[in-house]
Amino acid sequence: MVERRQPIKVTEAIRRVMNFAKAGSVEYVPIEASYGRFLGENLIADHHVPPFDRSPYDGFAIRAVDTGHASRNSPAELEVAGEIGAGNVFERPAAAGEAVRIMTGAQIPEGCDAVVMLEEVNEIEKNGSNYIQVKRNIQVGNNISFTGEDTKKGSLLTRKGNYITPGIVALLATFGYKNVPVAKKPKIGVIATGSELLEIDAPLEPGKIRNSNASMIQSQIIRAGGEPLYFGQFSDDLELCYNQVKNALDKVDMLITTGGVSVGDYDYLPDIYAKLGCDVLFNKIKMRPGSVTTAAEKDGKLLYGLSGNPSACFVGFELYTRPAIRTFLHSGTPFLQKATAKLGADLLKPNPFDRFVRGHIRYQHGQLVATPVGLDKSNVVSSLAEANILIQLPGGTSGYEAGRNVSVMLLEDQEGMTMEQFITENRP
Amino acid sequence: MVERRQPIKVTEAIRRVMNFAKAGSVEYVPIEASYGRFLGENLIADHHVPPFDRSPYDGFAIRAVDTGHASRNSPAELEVAGEIGAGNVFERPAAAGEAVRIMTGAQIPEGCDAVVMLEEVNEIEKNGSNYIQVKRNIQVGNNISFTGEDTKKGSLLTRKGNYITPGIVALLATFGYKNVPVAKKPKIGVIATGSELLEIDAPLEPGKIRNSNASMIQSQIIRAGGEPLYFGQFSDDLELCYNQVKNALDKVDMLITTGGVSVGDYDYLPDIYAKLGCDVLFNKIKMRPGSVTTAAEKDGKLLYGLSGNPSACFVGFELYTRPAIRTFLHSGTPFLQKATAKLGADLLKPNPFDRFVRGHIRYQHGQLVATPVGLDKSNVVSSLAEANILIQLPGGTSGYEAGRNVSVMLLEDQEGMTMEQFITENRP
Repeated sequence: MVERRQPIKVTEAIRRVMNFAKAGSVEYVPIEASYGRFLGENLIADHHVPPFDRSPYDGFAIRAVDTGHASRNSPAELEVAGEIGAGNVFERPAAAGEAVRIMTGAQIPEGCDAVVMLEEVNEIEKNGSNYIQVKRNIQVGNNISFTGEDTKKGSLLTRKGNYITPGIVALLATFGYKNVPVAKKPKIGVIATGSELLEIDAPLEPGKIRNSNASMIQSQIIRAGGEPLYFGQFSDDLELCYNQVKNALDKVDMLITTGGVSVGDYDYLPDIYAKLGCDVLFNKIKMRPGSVTTAAEKDGKLLYGLSGNPSACFVGFELYTRPAIRTFLHSGTPFLQKATAKLGADLLKPNPFDRFVRGHIRYQHGQLVATPVGLDKSNVVSSLAEANILIQLPGGTSGYEAGRNVSVMLLEDQEGMTMEQFITENRP
Repeated sequence: MVERRQPIKVTEAIRRVMNFAKAGSVEYVPIEASYGRFLGENLIADHHVPPFDRSPYDGFAIRAVDTGHASRNSPAELEVAGEIGAGNVFERPAAAGEAVRIMTGAQIPEGCDAVVMLEEVNEIEKNGSNYIQVKRNIQVGNNISFTGEDTKKGSLLTRKGNYITPGIVALLATFGYKNVPVAKKPKIGVIATGSELLEIDAPLEPGKIRNSNASMIQSQIIRAGGEPLYFGQFSDDLELCYNQVKNALDKVDMLITTGGVSVGDYDYLPDIYAKLGCDVLFNKIKMRPGSVTTAAEKDGKLLYGLSGNPSACFVGFELYTRPAIRTFLHSGTPFLQKATAKLGADLLKPNPFDRFVRGHIRYQHGQLVATPVGLDKSNVVSSLAEANILIQLPGGTSGYEAGRNVSVMLLEDQEGMTMEQFITENRP
């Protein structure tokens, strides 16, 4: 008996899953370990930048008023009262007629209100003292980086849930985050099913293939920001399988099984979901590949039944699991960023369903060009190595010609989109 | 005395550094730890894919000849001789008039040469046996994925030095790489200099700022694929400094110092390079920021003297250190990928030197739009959090208006470019 399933739209499947996506907790890691994590709270400036009036150049700090009548023919002569390196401060207020040699980044001495650059002055010696000659009237504020000019104390620098880049690490250091609040990584369980699957180091056998989905999906989990927990391959016994899923579920925040979701005779997953008392959110989607992608919910935890077909497994993860992982990481934009690109090759096969095709994006004269990989069958495996996008082809009665605009999802993107943007924007 | 330095072009500086860039050694890691590393050897298919003729659908394997005269009114009736699930093989050759129920991915039984899909047949029972009715003449090879159709044994799947994506992990699993040869990460030493620098967890003091460059550059090293080793801040004593650099150099593959490279009075680095007997490759470049970026070589190891200015430090690393790191990782395309983009805002200040401005790229109607970050001074710190490109503005006598084509480097890119591509391509 072939089970009848009710297919739903991709956007509806996304909404059903995201109803159960929730943010996780926050932990602290040393700043050295923060790159690539996701901020656990908004990052606020705890002081002005610069924290004091400082010099952007090597030069002399002066009182602008002392150059009031200076000219090429009658330069102002200011006595060099001392010097300050970066990190030091001049010990007393500068007096009338005085200049202080100052290094890039050093604090402007009290009493001074301008800086003249090194190359703008003549340095002379007179009566055993050092003087500079300034040949023009310098304005108050000349060459000073003022307190708070770059950012004000209390400013929001970046939001919680954002991916921590080297630039954000620099901000964290500037604002004293020796330890950084980051979103805790969700533990994502992985169970592989399929009696055709061999372990990676097993020699090939007739009728069997090596299990590549488990390794692939673990890498996708890491890329999304989660922590994979691999529970191995399913046994062939329903009761044992049930216990494996039940035990795994206790140890994780979400659980992925690969394979075992089709309507064939040997797939236990629907029975296991039933026995667990899961709420099945959907088990058929109007999309290719991955039409039998399944999602369920048990006590607030999401269970994903991804297809055993590698392409379908890959696509199902990026569409339905990744945004739940990024939501756990506090991201406000948990979906892959989409962009519009020109199709780089014909995809003429019409398809009634939305298709998601792995492709490679390149930048050509300022335009995005998306080329499907694996069109040429003799090359399908190696071309997967190059895939960095998913090309979205809305279902219809005709195919797509090269040069037409299509919507693509950027697989290596860290900025993301909101659900509403993902669903509504960049539709070709 | 201000030292006189001979400025060179950016491209010349790149060439001088790359003369000393060399590939490192290879190590093995478990496949679970291979995502994000760089392949240590070319990946070759050790078997055909598929490894055997298999069915892409659930259906019945048949002998096409048995349907020779089949039609809607006179269907061929074939006896169902058994069934095979994925991973199993049919134990004997199929005989004339027989069909074998077959699951997606299962091996085609000997004697069969076509598959009819489940939905194309009528299943009937007659005299206690199961039969299928086929209503048309099926061609030999119908619905069979043939051995080696996707990739041939011996094919090059991806090259050494390539960044290992989830797709490549899947290939590694498919071809039996339980342990994966990856390029060993280069150890990159980091020493911070600058008497104005406070530790990250220190309270602010007059004239001082927290050390953000050390944390930032360590993150950039990780992003580039290296392993950072932080040796702390320089002492203020020349002899001590010299010993710190000398000891650090023994422990690393390349060494970065930040700060201490300008021609000011307090910078020891030139003296230390001289005392070490380094070959200084350059100490002044026609670029902004980072004109005082320095590189030297000692017994084949590269030493970088990056500016203490955060922007200059950031840019100097991406232009001169990153490609040396990627070369160590066996990449054939060690430079950041460049693309042409439309400038999203005016940058009207003319500059005689090449400028590299941190910016943010967005995708707008299929076009790349690059907007400089930190133009608005009141926002310079927070906007750095968003930077994902460097905008390259060739030196000239006029500025750049919004809408003009500019060349940008994609900071999060993993594909890269060769040196010649980087130097010659995508010039606006």
